[in-house]
Amino acid sequence: MENFIEQLTDEQKIELERQFAIYSNGVQEIVPAHELKQKIAKSIVTNQPLKVKLGLDPSAPDVHLGHTVVLNKLKQFQENGHIVQLLIGDFTGKIGDPTGKSVARKQLTDEEVKHNAKTYFEQFGKVLDMEKVELHYNSKWLSTLNFEDIINLAASITVARLLERNDFSERLATGKPISLHEFFYPLMQGYDSVALESDIELGGNDQHFNVLMGRHLQEHFGKEKQVVILLPLLEGLDGVEKMSKSKGNYIGVDEAPNDMYGKTMSIQDEMMAKYFDLVTDLSLDEKNEIKANIENGTLHPRDAKMLLGRTIVRMYHDEEAAQQAENHFKTVFQKGVIPEDIPEVTWSGANSISIIDLLVQLDLQKSKGEARKMIQNGGVKLNGEKVEDIHLDVEITEDMIVQVGKRKFVKIKK
Amino acid sequence: MENFIEQLTDEQKIELERQFAIYSNGVQEIVPAHELKQKIAKSIVTNQPLKVKLGLDPSAPDVHLGHTVVLNKLKQFQENGHIVQLLIGDFTGKIGDPTGKSVARKQLTDEEVKHNAKTYFEQFGKVLDMEKVELHYNSKWLSTLNFEDIINLAASITVARLLERNDFSERLATGKPISLHEFFYPLMQGYDSVALESDIELGGNDQHFNVLMGRHLQEHFGKEKQVVILLPLLEGLDGVEKMSKSKGNYIGVDEAPNDMYGKTMSIQDEMMAKYFDLVTDLSLDEKNEIKANIENGTLHPRDAKMLLGRTIVRMYHDEEAAQQAENHFKTVFQKGVIPEDIPEVTWSGANSISIIDLLVQLDLQKSKGEARKMIQNGGVKLNGEKVEDIHLDVEITEDMIVQVGKRKFVKIKK
Repeated sequence: MENFIEQLTDEQKIELERQFAIYSNGVQEIVPAHELKQKIAKSIVTNQPLKVKLGLDPSAPDVHLGHTVVLNKLKQFQENGHIVQLLIGDFTGKIGDPTGKSVARKQLTDEEVKHNAKTYFEQFGKVLDMEKVELHYNSKWLSTLNFEDIINLAASITVARLLERNDFSERLATGKPISLHEFFYPLMQGYDSVALESDIELGGNDQHFNVLMGRHLQEHFGKEKQVVILLPLLEGLDGVEKMSKSKGNYIGVDEAPNDMYGKTMSIQDEMMAKYFDLVTDLSLDEKNEIKANIENGTLHPRDAKMLLGRTIVRMYHDEEAAQQAENHFKTVFQKGVIPEDIPEVTWSGANSISIIDLLVQLDLQKSKGEARKMIQNGGVKLNGEKVEDIHLDVEITEDMIVQVGKRKFVKIKK
Repeated sequence: MENFIEQLTDEQKIELERQFAIYSNGVQEIVPAHELKQKIAKSIVTNQPLKVKLGLDPSAPDVHLGHTVVLNKLKQFQENGHIVQLLIGDFTGKIGDPTGKSVARKQLTDEEVKHNAKTYFEQFGKVLDMEKVELHYNSKWLSTLNFEDIINLAASITVARLLERNDFSERLATGKPISLHEFFYPLMQGYDSVALESDIELGGNDQHFNVLMGRHLQEHFGKEKQVVILLPLLEGLDGVEKMSKSKGNYIGVDEAPNDMYGKTMSIQDEMMAKYFDLVTDLSLDEKNEIKANIENGTLHPRDAKMLLGRTIVRMYHDEEAAQQAENHFKTVFQKGVIPEDIPEVTWSGANSISIIDLLVQLDLQKSKGEARKMIQNGGVKLNGEKVEDIHLDVEITEDMIVQVGKRKFVKIKK
């Protein structure tokens, strides 16, 4: 490859470093980093956008934040004028798993593939500018290959190399069957990069082997090799396992603001920096400032997490929804531990009533005296907030939660 | 499979056993023998011929006796009314080896494939009745398979199973590369049996893995499984290595009668029974009688080998050529060691002359007295045969060899 970095002006070199810093933020690995710099430099010198590929399995597209790690990275490329190539692996989907052993590879009809692609499209639109995205289906080229083409494709790779893939080598070693056709999935994925002439391919760290295959095959077919950017796998709400729908530790991009915010608040403090890096659209400067402020103590971890929650809700809903979700959370959750199955009481009294009368009328206290005492002891809360004033006039609102002591709760329905 | 043996009459059962004895004579292994019996029984009951396949590599068809081991077996089936399917692997030949590493798999043009097939045809005609042979080219079905078909084909087999093939497992163990496309050669060969619906496939013992693949794939595609008949590899003239052109230890089916006979006479006595079984068209009874007679001493090994030589020459030339080759051998080789560069003398004398005058006129002896003495001492030979009579009248023939003592030779040219 021509050395484009050498051809840059000083100003262009600054631009190269700016983009490189953005793209490399939060990633697991760039294979290889110096080629990524050359690709960016080439794009600057030739004024041509880079083609950045993401391959998608056409089955069951229920997008959660785990998926958005790559989407956010794609967005960074898109914001800098590069072309996002979304590749729907419909050919693989239509074949399914001929052995019928893999549930993930059940055979899909054309209609199902199209429907799933549409679902991806809608959900990805929350991160990417879908009007600028190139959408490709790999059946276009894979279905035209004949036996001779496939023999040539297969001749490009050795069995030993394929057995280097962790799951293959483990299965061979433990006597679990590997059907020969499984060797073709990485080859197909790699061949897609040949057909698309991708400059860069993104993938989760567990796709290491498959995305590198694109590099290998592009070289085999005499094309410029793509750079591979591997992104870390995002741990789910449990902070341990990879975020996934089946584990129930996920935040879906279609979830309601309150759920999204609340789930975000449940992640562990140690995970926060990673979430800021990987699932928010904040600028690199903003991310670095937040991390620095947590580090030096000027930003309380709780406040940082609330900022994270607001950011995520804002990304998938809007600013107002983010604020409301935060208020809701503060009201309902932050100020005390409230059980889920609170007895409900239908309120037919006045809309405004003194706190002492309220407690008696709700049968939470037997007398006004006991009620007053309980308030003075700090044992009464409205929507999680301690009542300090025994003369408080309460405006009755829907779903208001009245708490006495640690265990008595009532939710008011009007 | 239906039990056809149970449906046979007593007479048909005798026919079954007759055929089975012929087909199993001299083979290495039948996989499995009881299915072969069922196939024969089915053919008898339904009065339908069996389809007996032999796959052929389209490269460099220089047929020698090693190849005829399977041809003779095919001939036995043909003689009993079954159909021989010759399968030319032209698809594989046209692809060659995309890695360019295998000399045996160099890419052939359509013309080369056709030329080689024609050469096979001509040479095989010396064993088989080619008018009754079905000739197939596997490009007919293999070239129509698309990627989806091939994925389905590959899904029928595991990587572990393929690695059971000796050369694959050895290469993997010793770090020698196996290109993925090599895994497809046995699959292609097996798929040919699916396409041809073969009942039986023949192969050399070194083809064990590949011919069994046909059985496996037929089952996978819901067809009746073929029976596999493995034939032993024929050792060449050295009695050690497999007969092959490159080793120079072969007898070609196109060789001249004298060469064919002479080479046969050079094989080791221990190899004779195997040669009778595998490369002659003698009946099972004849073979058994010969072997028994050698065993009980009524047939001298030298005479048995001469019978073998005559039989082989007769098969590839005719009865007369066989007899002439034997005479030639007897004359030239059997009765003494004759050097290759004998001085030639042009004879202008009478056609009939006494042996004593002949020796003097040829300057082989200085006087009639010396000549007489030499004859009486047994030192004179004509065409390798000792002259016993000092009064012998010799009929001069072309190329007659006159020998005096151990070193003096003259060849007469007329």
